[in-house]
Amino acid sequence: MTSKIEQLKTYLAEIVDLGYIGSLLGWDQETNMPPAGVKERGEQMATIARLAQQRFTSEELRRALEEAEAEVAGMDPDSDAARLVKVTRREVDKRVKVPSRYYEELSQLAVESYAAWKQAREQDDFEHFRPYLERMVDLRREFASYFSPYEHVYDPLLNEFEPGLKTQEVQQIFNELRPQQVALIQEITSRPQVDDSPLRQHFDPQKQWDFGVEVITKFGYDWQRGRQDKAAHPFTTSFGLNDVRITTRIMEDYVASALFSTMHECGHALYDLGCDPALARTPLAGGSSLALHESQSRLWENLVGRSKPFWEHFYPRLQAYFPEQLGNVSLDAFYKGINKVQPSLIRVEADEATYNLHVMLRLDLEIQLMGGELEARHLPEAWNAHMQEYLGLTPPTNAEGVLQDVHWSHGYIGYFPTYALGNLISAQLWEAIHKDIPDLEDQIRRGEFAQLLGWLREKIHRHGSKFEAPELVQRITGQPISPQPYIRYLRQKYAEIYGI
Amino acid sequence: MTSKIEQLKTYLAEIVDLGYIGSLLGWDQETNMPPAGVKERGEQMATIARLAQQRFTSEELRRALEEAEAEVAGMDPDSDAARLVKVTRREVDKRVKVPSRYYEELSQLAVESYAAWKQAREQDDFEHFRPYLERMVDLRREFASYFSPYEHVYDPLLNEFEPGLKTQEVQQIFNELRPQQVALIQEITSRPQVDDSPLRQHFDPQKQWDFGVEVITKFGYDWQRGRQDKAAHPFTTSFGLNDVRITTRIMEDYVASALFSTMHECGHALYDLGCDPALARTPLAGGSSLALHESQSRLWENLVGRSKPFWEHFYPRLQAYFPEQLGNVSLDAFYKGINKVQPSLIRVEADEATYNLHVMLRLDLEIQLMGGELEARHLPEAWNAHMQEYLGLTPPTNAEGVLQDVHWSHGYIGYFPTYALGNLISAQLWEAIHKDIPDLEDQIRRGEFAQLLGWLREKIHRHGSKFEAPELVQRITGQPISPQPYIRYLRQKYAEIYGI
Repeated sequence: MTSKIEQLKTYLAEIVDLGYIGSLLGWDQETNMPPAGVKERGEQMATIARLAQQRFTSEELRRALEEAEAEVAGMDPDSDAARLVKVTRREVDKRVKVPSRYYEELSQLAVESYAAWKQAREQDDFEHFRPYLERMVDLRREFASYFSPYEHVYDPLLNEFEPGLKTQEVQQIFNELRPQQVALIQEITSRPQVDDSPLRQHFDPQKQWDFGVEVITKFGYDWQRGRQDKAAHPFTTSFGLNDVRITTRIMEDYVASALFSTMHECGHALYDLGCDPALARTPLAGGSSLALHESQSRLWENLVGRSKPFWEHFYPRLQAYFPEQLGNVSLDAFYKGINKVQPSLIRVEADEATYNLHVMLRLDLEIQLMGGELEARHLPEAWNAHMQEYLGLTPPTNAEGVLQDVHWSHGYIGYFPTYALGNLISAQLWEAIHKDIPDLEDQIRRGEFAQLLGWLREKIHRHGSKFEAPELVQRITGQPISPQPYIRYLRQKYAEIYGI
Repeated sequence: MTSKIEQLKTYLAEIVDLGYIGSLLGWDQETNMPPAGVKERGEQMATIARLAQQRFTSEELRRALEEAEAEVAGMDPDSDAARLVKVTRREVDKRVKVPSRYYEELSQLAVESYAAWKQAREQDDFEHFRPYLERMVDLRREFASYFSPYEHVYDPLLNEFEPGLKTQEVQQIFNELRPQQVALIQEITSRPQVDDSPLRQHFDPQKQWDFGVEVITKFGYDWQRGRQDKAAHPFTTSFGLNDVRITTRIMEDYVASALFSTMHECGHALYDLGCDPALARTPLAGGSSLALHESQSRLWENLVGRSKPFWEHFYPRLQAYFPEQLGNVSLDAFYKGINKVQPSLIRVEADEATYNLHVMLRLDLEIQLMGGELEARHLPEAWNAHMQEYLGLTPPTNAEGVLQDVHWSHGYIGYFPTYALGNLISAQLWEAIHKDIPDLEDQIRRGEFAQLLGWLREKIHRHGSKFEAPELVQRITGQPISPQPYIRYLRQKYAEIYGI
């Protein structure tokens, strides 16, 4: 790379370090920190955030970036250097266009709003949360205004989490998906239900942990470059390309929880760990957008981890861990149990077939809220109407409805669609992988994942954040992001399980 | 406080945060970090150190400090504000007088020197380490030069670790101590040896852990504000006044190791945890000098933890944890075992009676090295001659002699005396405590430590770093730091154990 690029990289390295350090402060808070440390930890995180913001908005970075932009003008636009400059510009613009005061207001409101949401959910009292939500919607509209002109006011919010995607594109994808997914669920629910009671017995937590470790070790998780801890809400976090940690949560009376959460987080971690070391300590290091990240976690959790071939290999192992609970449960019964479909109220407990509908509901409401077509005070009715339409259910309380998710209290409007897009992309990739690895199912049946992981590394992981999701999916599959592979995947899977 | 002081505090708060964050990066590295994370962690620690150095040497801090100095000129010199300004000046001078380039050179040499020391010790090859040590001595002389004029070239080094103390004062204290301690050891070793074999059996690690937790919980360690983890070399670290963590190391075949290490680190932690919250997020937060810190750790480890009254309370508990190993071992035999005196080669394994001699040997050699009276190439002979003189032993290898400690490879010349000073101060405080709490032994015999901890908090802990060691000891005991209480303590203790 040239000297101007090197100068830019030197400057960015410090910002990247601050990001990793902030992540460590957060990880420690979730896994280790004694309770009384919370106030001081907040001060430290604010200090790190302020230092990063100062650097992002500094004259020095502005100049270094402009010089680097001039230098990459004639280069291959796919080169590391050109992509580094492009992604840095995107990130710097976000910091520069929005005044620092805005972010201070946002984090202040987020703290108050989170507390209000928590109480509102506990007491099933939407009205307690409403004024905070209204202020948050106003504040997020203000955020969007810094990026005008835009096609849709929701675009800048969406791009906070999913750069390169437009509201209109997401709506088009989901409009295509929705009727097919609703129809599928209606077919499934008209069939006799499968029995998942064998999963709901007492399972020793240490054995659950050990089995999960055995599985992700086979996936290729590198314990020299990562570790697993317990946390109330499982997550993956990076402190560099060689320190990518996962967390899990174990439920003693439900074996599927820790198991699939561990595979899910491992999928995230493998993405970050697979990044080309040449991108280390730059904004290109580690996985790209949230949707691409979710495509990786869902791929390992669902397309691998809830598949028949996977369990043909691992079920005897699981039975050996839990002979008393599973010794007399057939592979087929177990497989059906972990793939049970049941429309339910709570997104985070939803199965593969219904999950996306929870997301689509939120996306609709967010777009209407931001566009001013829906007022916050009408949210509960709108929520319940959608639930009835999509899933045939009406939440008995707002706590089980509109108040169930934490995201809005943090100001994370635009985040939800990435979950569903991740599902869609995972299936789209899965079809591409099958073309390149025709005997993939046999490999999985033998507990072999090296070729699969190699494919993901080559096509996705090594690029870090060089490519945005729509571009990368197009490059790999030759198609834009599409819901059809996911629908094909669900149809095929549930046709067998539910005898449709 | 006034507005100028508040301005100074606001500026310092960020520096203090960076210090805590650096400590968290270090703690995580020792307790959790996957091995491959080491390079990136080093980069992150360097970033934090550089940011702190920039702030310490900034024009903004210089001005804020000068304005604050003007403002506290007429104030009570013992007030928080006046002491804050004084301590800040001390710390800033250390950063400003020494060029940043110097610290970069030092940390670079320390990395190389540490690697060389490690190899030298493994291969018992002093000559491999010698050139690095010579460069380190030169570099530390350069450090001293930035503080000239000084009485002794060793003064600025000593003050890195123990502000407010002069080489000449330390020498005077140790010259008074040395003959008495040597004589005591000769008397002890002329008596029949006690048997510590009951301590050297297999002890279940989890039970060792649990017993240690039970003990320090009784001491008053607050688990809402701290936690314990395992580490290869036990240490205590703070990420704020409400997050002070300890680590321990468990040896399965020696029960005394984890036990006393846990009490020792708890002593350090109680010091930091006892600081007045008004000093939070300032350079006065947490314990003062290394010697004062060591006085607290040694007090809980030795004066409390190796005392007869302590074990009159706790020995039945320990026997309940280990009935098979200790059920038939009398309290008296156990008490003698944990207080066995035996001149030995390795400082970190030394007992209470011989420990200080290991330190004095190092102090002598450091002063001679820095003063130019001893050349590095003659260190091994000088080391061995001192060992023979003080402890009647000659190391069979340099690995067990001059190469045993890591400190010099890091450039920590001036650190060792704080260990011995901590021992002396602990006994000096112990006499003062007995005057104020006449029934202290009875309280300990009942497993009650609240009044003891209250005394330490009131006299020492709450002051944070307001007072340097010599001043605080004088204020509390009415005397300068003196070796006599420690000698009295040792004489009384070992007279009983060894029947002198």
